[in-house]
Amino acid sequence: MKNQFKLALCQMKVIDNKDSNIKNALDMIKTAALTKSDLVILPEMFNCPYDNDKFTEYAEEKKNSKTLKSISKAVKDLNIYIIAGSIPELDGDKLYNSSFIFNRNGDIIGSHRKMHLFDIDIPEKIRFKESETLSAGNQITVIDTELCKIGVAICYDIRFPELSRLMALKGAELIVIPGAFNMTTGPAHWETLIRGRAIDNQLYVAAVSPARNEKLSYVAYGNSMVADPWGKVLARAGEKEEVIYADINLSRVKEIREELPLLNGRREDIYSLIKK
Amino acid sequence: MKNQFKLALCQMKVIDNKDSNIKNALDMIKTAALTKSDLVILPEMFNCPYDNDKFTEYAEEKKNSKTLKSISKAVKDLNIYIIAGSIPELDGDKLYNSSFIFNRNGDIIGSHRKMHLFDIDIPEKIRFKESETLSAGNQITVIDTELCKIGVAICYDIRFPELSRLMALKGAELIVIPGAFNMTTGPAHWETLIRGRAIDNQLYVAAVSPARNEKLSYVAYGNSMVADPWGKVLARAGEKEEVIYADINLSRVKEIREELPLLNGRREDIYSLIKK
Repeated sequence: MKNQFKLALCQMKVIDNKDSNIKNALDMIKTAALTKSDLVILPEMFNCPYDNDKFTEYAEEKKNSKTLKSISKAVKDLNIYIIAGSIPELDGDKLYNSSFIFNRNGDIIGSHRKMHLFDIDIPEKIRFKESETLSAGNQITVIDTELCKIGVAICYDIRFPELSRLMALKGAELIVIPGAFNMTTGPAHWETLIRGRAIDNQLYVAAVSPARNEKLSYVAYGNSMVADPWGKVLARAGEKEEVIYADINLSRVKEIREELPLLNGRREDIYSLIKK
Repeated sequence: MKNQFKLALCQMKVIDNKDSNIKNALDMIKTAALTKSDLVILPEMFNCPYDNDKFTEYAEEKKNSKTLKSISKAVKDLNIYIIAGSIPELDGDKLYNSSFIFNRNGDIIGSHRKMHLFDIDIPEKIRFKESETLSAGNQITVIDTELCKIGVAICYDIRFPELSRLMALKGAELIVIPGAFNMTTGPAHWETLIRGRAIDNQLYVAAVSPARNEKLSYVAYGNSMVADPWGKVLARAGEKEEVIYADINLSRVKEIREELPLLNGRREDIYSLIKK
């Protein structure tokens, strides 16, 4: 296990054209690879506008996925890990918001299906009901890689402290969140949630949003961000398309957990949080 | 149950003199009562410097407590609720960091003993081990009042998302945190934790610190603060002694929980958080 490695967060501008989105993702991955990044992360729904109608139209089955095949090939050529944000995944008659994780050989070594579906209805601000089209995943995802154990959750999943905590207890030292907060929830909650999960669980959190695209029905907040285990923001994007980078140092996780032993300080005699 | 009520947070400057601290607390409570506050909150260890040696020296038994008797009398005269921050409480041969909650009649209607003890050791910055003198409480505290259900936790307790969540699930619409973060943890974590617990649990959080006193061995951060259920900061103190106020509107709790149904969105089929 490497003690230090480099993350690249690709804050892609997603548009209403799948082929262009895939090409853009591959270009950004190449840019990131040139800087010797070890792990490259794409945003939520990087190949598809964040829109219930589009999810259905753009959906792909894992085994026949043009998007995933393209990523796999790029990864193998570049010798990097990729967490491929998420795509609309068709499985039987169900649609999921799914993230696929690739190792350096281009093999899929894990996946996460968004397990908390985003339903919001704030009058005159925003209404969106993922549950109208998507089904929820049922797995907590922590992937063992040569870099470290990585927890993967998608967007709204980050709002549930139970999930981040369970990932930390399963050994995650980095939580990756492809996420597309919007112009209402983004300014209000995005940074606090990212830094809060890092502070509570004393691990790195990397959250990757699409760039802001005012032409789509759902406008992502941008502001992709990496927080360290002390809650410090190491890197933060603006609203536009860009790749941002952060150095992960696993010694910091160990050090902070020794200095302020939160995980060991939990009162497991009083409360219990378990995966069922 | 009143739908709206007014909070007062007394950011007291605690000094190394118990009688002066009690007098100061009573003065600040009177100031707050003059503005028609319904609930007045004092900071952690409001009658005693935050120092392990002082905890022992200043400790009082509940039944003979000069501090609590003084507060009780003031409350009865002023017709307000008080959450009396915390004091070092002696019970048998054990010492606790305890908060007492008074109704308008001056009766103690509940208490909370800090249940997560603060142990920190960051080289060249701060070292403090509550566990060297204090024992931990074993109860999760949610008090039913005519104002609303109020969760009470003390300082380091706020670092454990399990506790805030369990208080919310028990019906708390306001969590009160007497807390003394320091000049290392305060700037790094205080605001994010307060706003984060409010955002996650969609309730009000009121955190009350002592004012900064550079003459004491442990220097509190100040910055007492109230966050609303959307995570917005409604009131924030600086570093000096002052009373700050905030209006609580319970309709906001209901409204936000309907607009963004987080508590109902928890995946209780996948994970379980329970009080044992």
